Amino acid sequence: MQIVKVEGSLQCTARIEGLKHVALRVLQTESGSRLVATDPVGAEPGNWVFVTSGSAARYTAGDFEILTDLAVCGIIDHWPDKE
Amino acid sequence: MQIVKVEGSLQCTARIEGLKHVALRVLQTESGSRLVATDPVGAEPGNWVFVTSGSAARYTAGDFEILTDLAVCGIIDHWPDKE
Amino acid sequence: MQIVKVEGSLQCTARIEGLKHVALRVLQTESGSRLVATDPVGAEPGNWVFVTSGSAARYTAGDFEILTDLAVCGIIDHWPDKE
Amino acid sequence: MQIVKVEGSLQCTARIEGLKHVALRVLQTESGSRLVATDPVGAEPGNWVFVTSGSAARYTAGDFEILTDLAVCGIIDHWPDKE
Amino acid sequence: MQIVKVEGSLQCTARIEGLKHVALRVLQTESGSRLVATDPVGAEPGNWVFVTSGSAARYTAGDFEILTDLAVCGIIDHWPDKE
Repeated sequence: MQIVKVEGSLQCTARIEGLKHVALRVLQTESGSRLVATDPVGAEPGNWVFVTSGSAARYTAGDFEILTDLAVCGIIDHWPDKE
Repeated sequence: MQIVKVEGSLQCTARIEGLKHVALRVLQTESGSRLVATDPVGAEPGNWVFVTSGSAARYTAGDFEILTDLAVCGIIDHWPDKE
Repeated sequence: MQIVKVEGSLQCTARIEGLKHVALRVLQTESGSRLVATDPVGAEPGNWVFVTSGSAARYTAGDFEILTDLAVCGIIDHWPDKE
Repeated sequence: MQIVKVEGSLQCTARIEGLKHVALRVLQTESGSRLVATDPVGAEPGNWVFVTSGSAARYTAGDFEILTDLAVCGIIDHWPDKE
Repeated sequence: MQIVKVEGSLQCTARIEGLKHVALRVLQTESGSRLVATDPVGAEPGNWVFVTSGSAARYTAGDFEILTDLAVCGIIDHWPDKE
């Protein structure tokens, strides 16, 4: 699972039905690139979170039919390199 | 899910049957490399979109038998770094 | 799906039974690294092709028991950056 | 499977139910980036371990419902480049 | 499938049961990083091999319950860039 920082939410119009009504977050990786993930946890901008990928991501919201490949798993309280 | 920009469509002849008649888009990543994705959304050149990978991609067009590993999920309306 | 160029075929002896008698191609990525893929399409050296990965690759030859993780999906006729 | 070094454990609050009560380790890759993995083996900080990804990771703790995409598989005793 | 060179075997103690008694090889990629793979083929140090990833890797030894994500598929006899 990757460690990333939450930047904000994502607004999009033409969206496949397979994403249903889950919240989408824009995340920044340690190397500075950006990713989009579904968020069943309710992370806020500035939070450090870890994300799971692949088919595991689709189960995180309790619904395998959500067509994500990346989902927030937890908000990190303490992580040696955060400060 | 990755954030990429649509460049255009892809023309190809010898194509496996498993891709059926879905539209194929050429996409450019933030780092400048190119990818091909199926597009059930109808994205236009210049659009910023996000794409899902793996088995989730095959469900986006409602047909698991489409042998893609990358599919457009939505067109981004607003994204902090777009401007 | 990734865009790669066909270099040639691959000869190998000790080969797992799970690859059966499918043709194997050596491919070069845009960044210059090399990959091996199964080829149900019949691509020639010098062709630009796009490849699918993961479980989708195993279906491309119509036989899920072929233990590949990368397969040629189509030969590209026209691609803006090819010339 | 990737070779990584254990840094320590991860504390997190808002955590999806799908991770249950498995231990989470922060790992450092050879290139210096960080990952999080479930650990059914009991690795200690400073150990070199190897990790499996994807759906295989979910089986390592004997419970496919654990929504990890990376799990510790073993502690390495001897590895040519460790010293 | 990736092309890698065999460095040697891997000794490890605390190892998950899911790896059973398969041989483990340390491999070096073209870019110099190291990976671990199960080896149903019997590759020797110095051999160039190609490896399959993901769920396909688990079938290579004829036993889906082996929790690997990378397995040796074949020893390369001839490859343009080897000399």
